[in-house]
This record gives sequence, structure tokens and C-alpha cells, in this order.
Amino acid sequence: MMGSVLALCGGVGGAKLALGLLRALGPDELTVIVNTGDDFDHLGLRISPDIDTVLYTLAGVADEERGWGRADETWNFMSSLRQLGGETWFQLGDRDLAMHVERTKYLRGGGILTDFVGQAARHLGIAAQILPMTDEEVRTIVETDHGALEFQHYFVEHRCRPQVRSLWFAGASRTRVSAAVSRAIFDASRAIVICPSNPYLSIDPILSIPGVRASLKEAIAPVIAVSPIVGGHAVKGPTAKIMRELGIEVSNVSIAAHYHGLIDGLIIDAVDNDQVREIAVPVHSTGTLMQSLEDRVRLADEVLAFAGALAIPRLERVLSPGPSVGLFA
Amino acid sequence: MMGSVLALCGGVGGAKLALGLLRALGPDELTVIVNTGDDFDHLGLRISPDIDTVLYTLAGVADEERGWGRADETWNFMSSLRQLGGETWFQLGDRDLAMHVERTKYLRGGGILTDFVGQAARHLGIAAQILPMTDEEVRTIVETDHGALEFQHYFVEHRCRPQVRSLWFAGASRTRVSAAVSRAIFDASRAIVICPSNPYLSIDPILSIPGVRASLKEAIAPVIAVSPIVGGHAVKGPTAKIMRELGIEVSNVSIAAHYHGLIDGLIIDAVDNDQVREIAVPVHSTGTLMQSLEDRVRLADEVLAFAGALAIPRLERVLSPGPSVGLFA
Repeated sequence: MMGSVLALCGGVGGAKLALGLLRALGPDELTVIVNTGDDFDHLGLRISPDIDTVLYTLAGVADEERGWGRADETWNFMSSLRQLGGETWFQLGDRDLAMHVERTKYLRGGGILTDFVGQAARHLGIAAQILPMTDEEVRTIVETDHGALEFQHYFVEHRCRPQVRSLWFAGASRTRVSAAVSRAIFDASRAIVICPSNPYLSIDPILSIPGVRASLKEAIAPVIAVSPIVGGHAVKGPTAKIMRELGIEVSNVSIAAHYHGLIDGLIIDAVDNDQVREIAVPVHSTGTLMQSLEDRVRLADEVLAFAGALAIPRLERVLSPGPSVGLFA
Repeated sequence: MMGSVLALCGGVGGAKLALGLLRALGPDELTVIVNTGDDFDHLGLRISPDIDTVLYTLAGVADEERGWGRADETWNFMSSLRQLGGETWFQLGDRDLAMHVERTKYLRGGGILTDFVGQAARHLGIAAQILPMTDEEVRTIVETDHGALEFQHYFVEHRCRPQVRSLWFAGASRTRVSAAVSRAIFDASRAIVICPSNPYLSIDPILSIPGVRASLKEAIAPVIAVSPIVGGHAVKGPTAKIMRELGIEVSNVSIAAHYHGLIDGLIIDAVDNDQVREIAVPVHSTGTLMQSLEDRVRLADEVLAFAGALAIPRLERVLSPGPSVGLFA
């Protein structure tokens, strides 16, 4: 079964599966909606960490080893900034800087982020559509035992050390789903994939945009999540630590519960097969670690096959006039 | 005779003599007033080419061979900018960028250029005061056979090719001399040195700030210019070409005439000794080419000695109640 695929993701882990999907699909069959809750202003520049990770990853210019930023990067801007007494807690590579300078100029000129990202993707030769979750200002706030921290301050400056008490997305309730995001969800015919990004920090901001959750529930394509939890640990980043601090068991059962009502199926790692019976939606278990490009494409292929198997039940559910799922839920 | 020295300069040629003066003097004896008529906004960043050349030169981090920017520079920002389809006619090095980003942030935050430059000079360990000619917006406009061009477009984008018809300094008449510049002229007790910068493009903008010319005429220190013309040529840059296009003979006689009423003495290169009799002010002739640091310090020493010889006549002239020079000329 052919048709277009939509992926929702944050930074590194999600971008890896997005790259797998891009390689598994034909040109222009993939759209990626990316978290912008981590975006912030730094040194007068607008920084969109997750958007840039997705752009660099899909363009094949990301630094795989470091996990963020561009390959063959140099750091002379930072060394000169240090000499001038500037703020150096957030690392900006020389190559990476061009993206921030161009984006800041574009937005200050009255352009919207969606258009800037589309233009950057074209210049980088990416045959997929990449969409920020919103063109409006939404900030992920981490409430911690050290007070409320904006995401980058929590993540980079404080290195995720403070204990998380809750998370919220400042400004989200005042936004509306953008025309481009709305259209992308409507157009997705083959699969909607929630990538193995942090559900609380990377996916929830996207779902917090008014209209997104409802549109996903009405979409004709099956919604498949790939769990970021493997063997009781997060593959990368603070997902497991945050789950513990929020009093959530670090397991795929928790991930399934978190996406309850939204997903038609969950993909988990084969090491967690014992959890399958506790998960209320169909589960596909396989190797979910993505070390090589082959791993990513193989996992993408399995995601697409699993979505294919869930396509008919999904259609029946979405199109049925039953009381449990309404078109305007 | 000791005391403080004030230098007026533009970019490269002037900065070389400023460095010679810095080495010839003790710490905190030198103030440099720098042209900002070439400043412009590019990629959303505020660029101050002459200020930065002076900062980098006095800090010992300038690229001597290229003549602008920083030593050990890399160009990865530019290569990435090109990839993104950005404007690449103006080269910004990776190390250099930190200055532009920090300056832009400082000015957008409501700070003034004078304070930013003072802070940058301290961070770079420069034992001299560097002052922008003004904190207000003055733009050097080059009227050419290709129309009116802002300086950087004339200089970099069009490589000085258009024929110059006239020059003017947009905004200058609406400005007032800053407290810092006014104070620096008042405080100069040993010498005021007009560096061998382009008189029309680099020194005239400084003199166009209302109050500067009058303050220089009232200053107690002798005003010495070092001619940028050697053997009928400019040592560097478009000075000679512009003089020809403006119908001015390319000679030290023209330079002396240009600064008539302002200078107490002119330093010319020994190859032009035949022009001495046509110059109305005292002349000191010597080697004015500054290839090595030794050349710069030696020329600076000669400038200071020449100023010493002109100190008494200057004082007599400035303090005399004669009709030819008034305190408020």
C-alpha cells in the first residue's frame, strides 16, 4: 500500500527514524512535524534545536557521534566569543551558526518559521516536508526542585540534574494548529508515526497545540508509536529519569498508557516482549535500536508494514458512527 | 614631553600607525577615534569594519596578510551560509562573527557602541581607549556613475569600480559629538594624529560630526597628519583612484590643502621631498611605509617628536586672542 506518511518527532532519536522513513519511502512521500517547544533566543539569535537536528539528519550533514549539530564542525566562533566575555554555556558551531543567523534574519523580516524551514530543506536537498509544530511561540517549561526552567536551561545549562515535578508548554493554549500542520495530518494516508522521541518533552508539546490531537484522532491513517524505552531504560537523553521523577514506571506499558486513545499500535523492542500482554493496543516487537542507517531503514519498513496491517481496522474505527470515537472528539 | 595622544583613523593603514603609537607610548596614554561611516547591517548583524580592524590590530589578533579580519580565521560559517542560499558577497570569518553577534546583541539591548567597544577592548587586553566617532547612525554614501552606493556596497560588492562623483555622510548633520569623543579631544595634551587613512572616506566622516572640527581647532595638542600618498600613489585602497575621479591631484600638496586650517604639520614620505616647498604647514619627511612592527613604532616616534617640536607654536596660536583663530571657530 502506497501513500503519504507523517512522522512526529523531537530531536536525535526521532530524527533517526525519520531518516529511515525518508530512505524507505519515495521522494515527497514523507512529512515530519517537529517539536519547537525547545526553541529559544540566545545571543540575539533564534535557535530551533529539534528542527535543525531533523534538517541536518535528513540532509546527511549531522554529526552522528556527537548527536547534535553538523559534521566536520569547527568551534572558532565559540573560542572568540569566550575571549569577548560572551555567554558560552550553549555551544554553537561555526557551520551551524549560518542556520541561526539566516533564521533570525528571516523571522525578523516578518517571515514565518514554516516557510524558513521549507526553504532550508530545499537548499539542503531534502526530499521531505519538514514542518515546525507551530509558527507561534510555545516554550516547554520544566518545573523542578530548582524552580521553573526553560527547556534549554534545564537540558544544557543544568544538564538535566534538577528533579522534575511537572512539565508545561507556555503559550500553547493560545496557539492554533497551523494550516500546514493541519493539512499534513489530513493528507497522511499510509501512516502517522510517533517517533521514539521523549513523549513528555518532545511529543507532548506537539500534542499540546489546540487542534492537533483532535486532527490525529480523525486522520484516516493508522497512528503508530515507536517506544523510546528499551529494557527499562531510555536509549538516549533524560526520558527514564523524568519518568521516575514524575512517578511513572519506566516501561512500554507506561508509554502505551500515555498515548492511549491516540495510537492504533505500539512498536516495542523485543527485549520487552513480556510486557505485550499488559498493553491495550496491538504491539509489534522488533529490534528498535538504530545504530546504523540499515537499522533505521529496516525499522521504518517494519513501521510501515505494521501500519499496513492496522489500516483497515483504523478506517473502520474512524469512519464508524459509533459513540466511542466521534469525528470531533 | 609626556601626555596623552589622540589618533583619528579608519581601517587598515590608520590602524597600523595606531599600533605603532600604542607601542611607543605607555599604557592608557593613547585614545583612538575611529570612523563608523562604513558601519552597516548585514544578515541582521551590525558590522563596524574600521572599529574591528582597530580592535584586532591593537590586540595583535589581526590578519596582517589579508589586511582585514582575524588571524587563523576559518570560513565554515560562509560555506554553510552559501549552502543555505544566503548572501555571501560580504565575507564573515568564524572568529570574527563573535564580535558582530555580541555587538548586535548589545546594541539591541539598548547599549551604545562606545560602551560595547570599550568592553571589547578590555576583553582583548588593549591598553588604549578606542572610541567610535559617534554612537548615532552616519552612513558614508558614495555618489557614482552607477548611482548612490552605501560604502560597503561600493567597496566590497562593486570593488571600488564605479567612478566616484562625490561623497557625503548621511545623518552626520543630525548627530552631535559624543561626550567621550569631546572629552578625548579636550584631554589630548601631547599630540593629535590624523593617521594615514583615506582622508575622504575615513577621516572626513569623523570631521563631519558637528563639533569635532571646532574641538580639534581648540585643542591644546598640535594636530599632525600623516599623508597616505607616497610617490603619487596610495599605499593601499582606493584613495588615489577617488582623488583622480574627484579631480584632485594625487599628491601631498592636495592632502595638505584638504586638512588646511586643521593641521599644524604634515608628515610625508621622503620620496616626495620635492613637494615640501608647496605645502603651507611645517613638513617632516621620512619613510612612511609600515611593513614591520618596527616601521610602525619608528614612525610613531617620529610623529611624537614632530608634535613636540610644534607644541609651543600650537599653544601660542590656540591661546592667542588673534582674529584668525577663535576659540569657537
